[in-house]
Amino acid sequence: MTRKMWGLIPVLDCSQLLSLCPSQYKPSIATPKADSPPPTMSADQAFVTLATTDNYAKGAMVLGQSLRNHNTTKKLVALIGPHVAEPCRDVLGTIFDEVRVVDVLDSGDVAHLSLMKRPDLGVTFTKLHCWTLTHYSKCVFMDADTMVLSNIDELFEREELSAAPDPGWPDCFNSGVFVFTPSNETHEKLITFCSENGSFDGGDQGVLNSYFNTWATKDISNHLPFIYNLSSISIYSYLPAFKQYGHDAKVVHFLGKVKPWSYSYDNQRGELYAKSVQPLLQQAYGDSPFTSGFVEGSEEGELHQDVREHPAPPPAQKLSSNERKQRWEAGQIDYMGDDSFANIERKLDSFLK
Amino acid sequence: MTRKMWGLIPVLDCSQLLSLCPSQYKPSIATPKADSPPPTMSADQAFVTLATTDNYAKGAMVLGQSLRNHNTTKKLVALIGPHVAEPCRDVLGTIFDEVRVVDVLDSGDVAHLSLMKRPDLGVTFTKLHCWTLTHYSKCVFMDADTMVLSNIDELFEREELSAAPDPGWPDCFNSGVFVFTPSNETHEKLITFCSENGSFDGGDQGVLNSYFNTWATKDISNHLPFIYNLSSISIYSYLPAFKQYGHDAKVVHFLGKVKPWSYSYDNQRGELYAKSVQPLLQQAYGDSPFTSGFVEGSEEGELHQDVREHPAPPPAQKLSSNERKQRWEAGQIDYMGDDSFANIERKLDSFLK
Repeated sequence: MTRKMWGLIPVLDCSQLLSLCPSQYKPSIATPKADSPPPTMSADQAFVTLATTDNYAKGAMVLGQSLRNHNTTKKLVALIGPHVAEPCRDVLGTIFDEVRVVDVLDSGDVAHLSLMKRPDLGVTFTKLHCWTLTHYSKCVFMDADTMVLSNIDELFEREELSAAPDPGWPDCFNSGVFVFTPSNETHEKLITFCSENGSFDGGDQGVLNSYFNTWATKDISNHLPFIYNLSSISIYSYLPAFKQYGHDAKVVHFLGKVKPWSYSYDNQRGELYAKSVQPLLQQAYGDSPFTSGFVEGSEEGELHQDVREHPAPPPAQKLSSNERKQRWEAGQIDYMGDDSFANIERKLDSFLK
Repeated sequence: MTRKMWGLIPVLDCSQLLSLCPSQYKPSIATPKADSPPPTMSADQAFVTLATTDNYAKGAMVLGQSLRNHNTTKKLVALIGPHVAEPCRDVLGTIFDEVRVVDVLDSGDVAHLSLMKRPDLGVTFTKLHCWTLTHYSKCVFMDADTMVLSNIDELFEREELSAAPDPGWPDCFNSGVFVFTPSNETHEKLITFCSENGSFDGGDQGVLNSYFNTWATKDISNHLPFIYNLSSISIYSYLPAFKQYGHDAKVVHFLGKVKPWSYSYDNQRGELYAKSVQPLLQQAYGDSPFTSGFVEGSEEGELHQDVREHPAPPPAQKLSSNERKQRWEAGQIDYMGDDSFANIERKLDSFLK
């Protein structure tokens, strides 16, 4: 389990096909599934994610499949941007109960009007749209670059707004995983707040922390344990704590610009993406290359090519063990080279048994 | 104020002498001051720090002087290891009300016995000794590599154990600043716990987090705001939050192996160390070189030379602004070069007015 947790999600060249397709899920685009939920299903509670590009859609597939694999009883909702391609939507529809296109530009509501004033906050307004899912009584939002390692349905016992601390500034919560209560009123307030005050970090995390500004001081029950939103970067920032508490990780969050599913890795062990998601993509795309739209978070909003074949950075100059240690302690961490997940993982394997 | 906060503490070559010596403080070694406190003084509450080496003693001087400069009404206590040299003790005595030598090896108590079994935990046992300061009803411990930026006497309204989150693993508190209640019983329990369970990080932070293990989940009032223990590393890890909340910083914590007072910097502006501490050291040492004992945290415990003249690492290969940005976003931060405090500071000066 722990070994799997820190195994990377390899991106294969469409070599694994339909055998692992979860046939129990039928495509369903932009509308909730009509079939009634199984008796144990919580029909009025949902996990919600957001994919504004095809590339993030791949992350959403991994997340959704990981929730399925751990037998969630909640509904799964994927909000997608208008740029996400049809085949990608089809694949999302095989994993999620509801795939809903959110195009703030097409809406006549307060979000659209606000966007006219603050075009820089487009993706943020799109994410805030999750509050309009009022056919659910409670939701847990999860970024498309997160992945669950066990069933986390217990999060629905928490109230809005519950979230885990952000390791960068721990009096802020990280908005990659949060519990919220859908409400059109809250949605409008958030949009208005956002358009009037902007976002201190240019994204949804800044807005949400400014709006829910008593999180750090008011009620400890709104603090999700860090293991529900464990930044992969914490392996480096406080390794002993990771060794002490990492066993219990329930959600891992791949912070950073280049995501695990954007790299080509050796397939050392079968992983979620290769086993369950890649075959679905292959089914949807056939032999056509998988190309993404614009990359979320890109400053200029320009078009990017798919980064699946993004070459790994050249290996850093080889350093002695002691030099590496000194550089690490000084904060000069070679995340992509000597200190990469793959290398760290091998070392951790010996600790985490 | 904010500009001063991020000004580095330059270490000068003994060029500033006694003119700034705080003459109102008389040396007092290993015993509490006899003179009764001023009417506004809280005689039964104290800020406590620890210096196991001459080098950390320099940090303790900066900390103590910063507390004085911000008119604390609390007593100041410096615990020192037996390696700290006499002249250094003298200087500490001019700033602190009480300078107490802690030599676990010389004590006949449970700490000594435990140290026989766990020699690796020597400095940790020394720090835990602060719980024996039972002539105070409440204390705030502050690491010698912290420095206050305003009066923080309000911390004494909190109960044991209050501390701020550690940015590396935010469900742990950082043990660089914490509120505690001296108690011989707690001291013995801590030492016993420590000798039986060890420390997951090899130091006091691991022990204290394991012992006070409900900090993350029980009572929000035990969570000190992050601005009471602001790691300098947070400038890098979440710059927008630093820009948003950094103005209010009350305590800055210089994490990392090389401390600000260990470098030679240009004296761009007069700072605390140069103005108030360096003259005292000059008075105590005369023209003799300032040499430290062993460096706290050194794995091997070997003797080190003073790192005051520690040369800055060679500048990294020059990168374009965009390359630097990409490396930063990928976590490859050149803390000592392009992304050094000095360079960051210049940029921040334009934001933080």
